[in-house]
Amino acid sequence: MIVSVIGESIATPLNEKYAYEVGKLLAKSNLTLACGGLGGVMEAASEGCKKEGGTTIGILPGLNPSESNQWIDIPICTGLGYARNVIVARTGLVVIAIGGAYGTLSEIAYALAEDKPVIGLNTWEIMKNNSFDNKITRANNAQDAVQKTLEKIAGKG
Amino acid sequence: MIVSVIGESIATPLNEKYAYEVGKLLAKSNLTLACGGLGGVMEAASEGCKKEGGTTIGILPGLNPSESNQWIDIPICTGLGYARNVIVARTGLVVIAIGGAYGTLSEIAYALAEDKPVIGLNTWEIMKNNSFDNKITRANNAQDAVQKTLEKIAGKG
Amino acid sequence: MIVSVIGESIATPLNEKYAYEVGKLLAKSNLTLACGGLGGVMEAASEGCKKEGGTTIGILPGLNPSESNQWIDIPICTGLGYARNVIVARTGLVVIAIGGAYGTLSEIAYALAEDKPVIGLNTWEIMKNNSFDNKITRANNAQDAVQKTLEKIAGKG
Amino acid sequence: MIVSVIGESIATPLNEKYAYEVGKLLAKSNLTLACGGLGGVMEAASEGCKKEGGTTIGILPGLNPSESNQWIDIPICTGLGYARNVIVARTGLVVIAIGGAYGTLSEIAYALAEDKPVIGLNTWEIMKNNSFDNKITRANNAQDAVQKTLEKIAGKG
Repeated sequence: MIVSVIGESIATPLNEKYAYEVGKLLAKSNLTLACGGLGGVMEAASEGCKKEGGTTIGILPGLNPSESNQWIDIPICTGLGYARNVIVARTGLVVIAIGGAYGTLSEIAYALAEDKPVIGLNTWEIMKNNSFDNKITRANNAQDAVQKTLEKIAGKG
Repeated sequence: MIVSVIGESIATPLNEKYAYEVGKLLAKSNLTLACGGLGGVMEAASEGCKKEGGTTIGILPGLNPSESNQWIDIPICTGLGYARNVIVARTGLVVIAIGGAYGTLSEIAYALAEDKPVIGLNTWEIMKNNSFDNKITRANNAQDAVQKTLEKIAGKG
Repeated sequence: MIVSVIGESIATPLNEKYAYEVGKLLAKSNLTLACGGLGGVMEAASEGCKKEGGTTIGILPGLNPSESNQWIDIPICTGLGYARNVIVARTGLVVIAIGGAYGTLSEIAYALAEDKPVIGLNTWEIMKNNSFDNKITRANNAQDAVQKTLEKIAGKG
Repeated sequence: MIVSVIGESIATPLNEKYAYEVGKLLAKSNLTLACGGLGGVMEAASEGCKKEGGTTIGILPGLNPSESNQWIDIPICTGLGYARNVIVARTGLVVIAIGGAYGTLSEIAYALAEDKPVIGLNTWEIMKNNSFDNKITRANNAQDAVQKTLEKIAGKG
């Protein structure tokens, strides 16, 4: 079973730490990691996952597998540019969003549009008509994010 | 010059009214309208634009031009499903977002990621780290939205 | 009604002449031209169409409308790179292939896969099991190509 | 290293046998298999690969990992419909085409357009100006196809 981790490619130290820990905990839970395959949150999560013996998928914007970070086992070369974000959002059973720039927001939006659970860790809040949209499940730390991911997967079983 | 209008496919009466007026005002300003080609905000904006003699482009999720609403002059058949949202966001020089569900949020995010001006009319607010992101330019009504669109286009000239 | 013209971006003089004439004849038949928006066959067909007063759509690989050739009225910015070929193939009711490199072959294949009529003018032949596939309708010149296009459109009516 | 196997979803017994053997031989060579994840050639190749202990990637047209055949380890949910063909062609270092309908031809064309080696086993021939295009490397059987794949990979090293 695959979980997608999305987040900024130039990450704050806190978000990198979160991502690394999430990657480790996903591997410990025997979950495969999918991400956009590049730097920042993607790289930190991939490193954590690999160091714990997990499997990592990188869904790349370009044509060349060597553009992926060094922790990617399976590079998927889309050649679609940032339109590949939608495939990252779709490939995980659950999406964990950490920090994030606008690309991350697009992935959150695609996941929510398709009723896929989104776990948010230090990421965007979205509001409409002056009230918060509560479809993103908030996590307080990496452990909490993976715990809530496992609950979402179990709930779909 | 093309302006994209994005928004919910099942729209509130207020958002449909906004969309219709925006469509009319875009046509009056000699701007071409691009949208997702389906119902709700997309249809109302297309109707307004056509009734004022404008030109309308519908960037469709499916393979069949007949899936577009009746006000579309130029159906683009992507066959990409909702991944076509990214093309709607990219094709306009400016994006006007009216109301909107998660699909609209994905289009806003893509436009912002590519530094394209987004005018928001009764649509999503986005926040990070407890502060509002101010990259969406807020409009109070259809006239204001098109006025701000014209200013953005002039500013890029 | 939209007809797609596909073909090589660096074209032989013969193929450019064919493309220019096809563009003119499509405009004379009140058909809108869609193409990939760049050079070679795409540019010559667009020029012919515009000089006869027709309308031209360029479905671009990149993000910037200014990458289109000068004869494009409606630039669609996909940002999908050469994966945008599939949208060119899908947007026309009929596809006219002139000359062509491998990108053109991909568009022919997509059109045939979706049972869309393909008119071939000096373009690829495809064979399987030592016999020619006869799904591409062969044309001898530009006039013949547009005549056969009109017949295909009428036959679908 | 990943090799893509492409081919018809409703396959002849001969092509299924070829695909099954190719899958086995790829696994024996420690190569990962990527395919479109569905039936026919895709399923037979995946089965052969799994029975030899290999790893299989299915790049799916839809949103649901359960649409993949039972031999897929890693389902990538593109939601792009048949436009996902381009990602299959791009993800392998080499593409092996077995039999094939028009979708397979589109993948061959994309691979050739990007100068990726294509090994053809009982598949399309393509001609231009009355001469065969010799960019597809012909194989006589499964063993030959995988042998030539290994040579192409070595040649790029």
